[in-house]
Amino acid sequence: MLSTTDIRNRRAAASRLELLRAELLNRKLAGLIIPRFDAHQGEYCAPHDERLAFLTGFTGSAGFAIVTRRDALLFVDGRYQVQAENEKEDGFAIKHLHKEPPEAWLRGNVQQGEIMGFNPTLIPCNLYDRLLSAVNSAGGTLVALDSDPIDAIWQDQPEKPVGRISAYPIALAGETSKEKRRFIGRLVANSGADFLVEAQPDNIAWLLNVRGSDVAFNPVPHSFLILGRSGETEWFVDQRKLPNSLSDYELDDVERRDPARLNLRLAQLANNRTIMIDPDFAPSALSFVVKGNGGQTLSQQSPITQTKAIKNATELEGFRSCHLEDGAALASFLAWLDADVEERALSGSAVRESEAAQKLLEFRQARPGFVEPSFHTISAFGKNAAMCHYKAAPQYDAEITGKGLYLIDSGGQYRSGTTDVTRTIAWGSGGGDVRKIYTAVLKGLISLLTLRFPKGTRGHHIDAFARRALWDLGRDYDHGTGHGVGHFLSVHEHPQRLNQTVNDVDLAAGMVMTIEPGYYEKGSFGIRLENQVEIVEDDDGFLRFESLTLVPIDLKLVETYQLTTAELEFINEYHASVRQRISPLLTREVRKWLEKATHVFWK
Amino acid sequence: MLSTTDIRNRRAAASRLELLRAELLNRKLAGLIIPRFDAHQGEYCAPHDERLAFLTGFTGSAGFAIVTRRDALLFVDGRYQVQAENEKEDGFAIKHLHKEPPEAWLRGNVQQGEIMGFNPTLIPCNLYDRLLSAVNSAGGTLVALDSDPIDAIWQDQPEKPVGRISAYPIALAGETSKEKRRFIGRLVANSGADFLVEAQPDNIAWLLNVRGSDVAFNPVPHSFLILGRSGETEWFVDQRKLPNSLSDYELDDVERRDPARLNLRLAQLANNRTIMIDPDFAPSALSFVVKGNGGQTLSQQSPITQTKAIKNATELEGFRSCHLEDGAALASFLAWLDADVEERALSGSAVRESEAAQKLLEFRQARPGFVEPSFHTISAFGKNAAMCHYKAAPQYDAEITGKGLYLIDSGGQYRSGTTDVTRTIAWGSGGGDVRKIYTAVLKGLISLLTLRFPKGTRGHHIDAFARRALWDLGRDYDHGTGHGVGHFLSVHEHPQRLNQTVNDVDLAAGMVMTIEPGYYEKGSFGIRLENQVEIVEDDDGFLRFESLTLVPIDLKLVETYQLTTAELEFINEYHASVRQRISPLLTREVRKWLEKATHVFWK
Repeated sequence: MLSTTDIRNRRAAASRLELLRAELLNRKLAGLIIPRFDAHQGEYCAPHDERLAFLTGFTGSAGFAIVTRRDALLFVDGRYQVQAENEKEDGFAIKHLHKEPPEAWLRGNVQQGEIMGFNPTLIPCNLYDRLLSAVNSAGGTLVALDSDPIDAIWQDQPEKPVGRISAYPIALAGETSKEKRRFIGRLVANSGADFLVEAQPDNIAWLLNVRGSDVAFNPVPHSFLILGRSGETEWFVDQRKLPNSLSDYELDDVERRDPARLNLRLAQLANNRTIMIDPDFAPSALSFVVKGNGGQTLSQQSPITQTKAIKNATELEGFRSCHLEDGAALASFLAWLDADVEERALSGSAVRESEAAQKLLEFRQARPGFVEPSFHTISAFGKNAAMCHYKAAPQYDAEITGKGLYLIDSGGQYRSGTTDVTRTIAWGSGGGDVRKIYTAVLKGLISLLTLRFPKGTRGHHIDAFARRALWDLGRDYDHGTGHGVGHFLSVHEHPQRLNQTVNDVDLAAGMVMTIEPGYYEKGSFGIRLENQVEIVEDDDGFLRFESLTLVPIDLKLVETYQLTTAELEFINEYHASVRQRISPLLTREVRKWLEKATHVFWK
Repeated sequence: MLSTTDIRNRRAAASRLELLRAELLNRKLAGLIIPRFDAHQGEYCAPHDERLAFLTGFTGSAGFAIVTRRDALLFVDGRYQVQAENEKEDGFAIKHLHKEPPEAWLRGNVQQGEIMGFNPTLIPCNLYDRLLSAVNSAGGTLVALDSDPIDAIWQDQPEKPVGRISAYPIALAGETSKEKRRFIGRLVANSGADFLVEAQPDNIAWLLNVRGSDVAFNPVPHSFLILGRSGETEWFVDQRKLPNSLSDYELDDVERRDPARLNLRLAQLANNRTIMIDPDFAPSALSFVVKGNGGQTLSQQSPITQTKAIKNATELEGFRSCHLEDGAALASFLAWLDADVEERALSGSAVRESEAAQKLLEFRQARPGFVEPSFHTISAFGKNAAMCHYKAAPQYDAEITGKGLYLIDSGGQYRSGTTDVTRTIAWGSGGGDVRKIYTAVLKGLISLLTLRFPKGTRGHHIDAFARRALWDLGRDYDHGTGHGVGHFLSVHEHPQRLNQTVNDVDLAAGMVMTIEPGYYEKGSFGIRLENQVEIVEDDDGFLRFESLTLVPIDLKLVETYQLTTAELEFINEYHASVRQRISPLLTREVRKWLEKATHVFWK
């Protein structure tokens, strides 16, 4: 039964839909297309940009809405179906984002002559092309709006974030911003463009050697940037985010401009010029400005994306050093878990998922250089771990009893790098096929950690090595095997990826990635083992993954007879290296636990 | 020094180039584009269609020429650079087909206003589009010619082949032609087309349950076919290839027509209709006819291609039975090799590569159901085996001495199926890293033969399993790992493939393929091990490769300590199965050899 507060909120929200429809009528629009993302296409939005949540009530990290006079639709993917059903406001019907995508709906339901609107600062070029083709094929018209109708009805919309921007020192970045800008300018010139217009916050933060605080988990500022062939740069950034003097920033040669003047400036520059725009990440509005002012666009992935993916020696050193700290935090956490979980469960005050996550945060906070978590920690026991994107919320927050599997997927933003690690800890014997499956997931991780591969190899060529042992059991997991990781930037960094999906980027020395095979049995248990790695080059030019993560792997469920001698040796060598490298950072007690946890392991 | 005959031939050929240029001048053409393939895009041409060889002297299986008033260019790929240099006529310059492709040359060298001609019955739609874009971007015009200028100057051009077409019995095909035509008709209807126009000989042979003899190695007839939504079929085939009565053919409901009337008929049918045309395999001429007569084309892979790739139970039974025969032939051959090579080398009359190939052919010819080789046998000793597409020719024909590696890649067309197998046989200790490498190639083969994989897996997902052991050694091979095989049709059958290159076809139960990892050291040695396999489905819905090939693997160079227990067990089980299944077909002597060759193998 709903509480009165619930009913009041729902009424208020229903009137949002009504208000929006009135606004659309006013503007002579048949409907509005509402994405979840902001102008920077990041994983996290500032409260100012939570338009989808404001309108629909849905708070997940991926979604899409279409509102017309007749329909109000909320599109979410498979993992969010239940959450969307619980959260959505009256009047919205839920559709599957991939099985019944918005384009298909538009194609089938827009009527001849209808005008559909969208906010072109939120929708990137490639998505715009797909929406346009869908609306046009139904006989409708798609119109880019000057102002967002949601903002018009959102009376208490929070301000845009004005998080402080700090300089990121050369000692950690390894390269001056000026060098980076010159290099990227040359790539822009080589591609035949005159300018690059950049909207991705992590690309801008990397290029200018700055960090910001506009959104959760990602230490990046929202801004825009235009860069020319010689590296000359105009930075469209809210001045309130910066101090008056930029003497620490080494950005004397960067023109700072008001973000509100971006379109005007682009219009000035565009005539007879070619402007490079990343079609997946830059707002379509920028492309309209260029084309509307005598310019040409070059639709191409930003050259910063590929350059930033290859970490320099200083950045790699930073990753290695923050992983020492992260390993120490994790060891302390795992030792605490080992000591407390069973005892507290027996004493009737079992550790809950949220408490464990908090405890881990505290261990990380005690490490030098730690800034904030790199994403929302997944602390999941038993069947909760079968939900890949589980967030412990008060209504679920399970007790970690002394029997079953506990999955902890977490990471830290450190000044010297970004971490991401998953371990699965077992109490009891597992039961069923759990031991077999845990062993298979471990074999998958080891298979990639021991692989050597030639230059030119791409993620889709080798993803299957992580799955083979599971395939042997007739099992698999329904997510990618690994993603790029930014350097004190986004924990999910494109362009390279380990996945069955085709990825056009060659894996290369200096890339930092994760390897994270898993297995999930709905309503029962979840297993994932994740190491962060750097790609290194051997003397003969072949590449391999070297672990950055220094965290012991729980071996309680391993069926040793399923392991080859080489796999056993790998585990022992890895554990020896963990012990050797993080022991000096630990308390005596945790060091004792680590020695036990990483002892030599035989058949 | 050249012989007088050589000089005479070269003079005659130089005048071919002159004759062609005169012909082009006559037709007001600036140049002509000459592909190697015929109207059916098969691997082998009939003598009538060897226009590239007639003009340029080059006899390889892939190439391309462009002749203008100024230039005469022969484009060949990496494997043919040497051969092309040796064979080419005066006046031709050689270009690399992939590094400096014809399109790039056209883009850079065609001049404003020039008219380039091509024969549209030879160039498929997708290639036409690329050529057109290249010529247009240079300011030239590309014109489809009504008749081929090469045919005009080729006085003694052989006639088109009129190889006899025979009915392929239902007992071997497993399905009537009428059933197949109805099914394909439904697929045409589902795609929204009214008709399919088909030019691929193996697709037509499969559809009509016929086999032919127009080209070497592929038992297929050249013809064209139009098929409608209900499976109604018009077959454009030279009547001389068929007897007067087709009572044996179960093709009463197929309209037979003169191939010369194909365009006329297509023009009649096209108006307001949609005609499906495979853009990679059907002549662009067909597309021009459709579009020029009020029709639309649907550019899509022929539905026969995908359907034919999944073999039915009868076809699979046929494959299994012809592999018994092929295994018996190979065992006899390998036993002969084992008995004779060293002895003959010592006695001063060593076996030559060509003699070995001939011997293998004779062993195959002694097997029931054998028709012809399925491709030109590669019989290569020592450094010759490092050339992947080596053909023993008189000037190379090496002696197989009693020391070194001998590679034999061959196959047979049997009435019940097509075979393709490679083995590498060693005498002596190998030397250098040869044992390590041979073991790695074997591990690669075993890795795929023991893999289980889920539905939805594609060739590029699992190709790397065949390479991993070589990658460990810092080595690799520069060719695909496997290809589809036709059923008493083409030994290279698309669409599925095992390769690093992305392939959009899901591997599926019933497909027949090869797995053939290798390693080649230029000027030194070559190794390849190839088994033909069928894809089978396990009870849990996972797929795996099951060997059709029943031929012992030479274990003399295997470093057993590099093998896991599972790999050793696999070899012993495979050899036990070879022994058990082909022994009954062997002479007493060969059976004895086989027992020795397949004895249990331990560390």
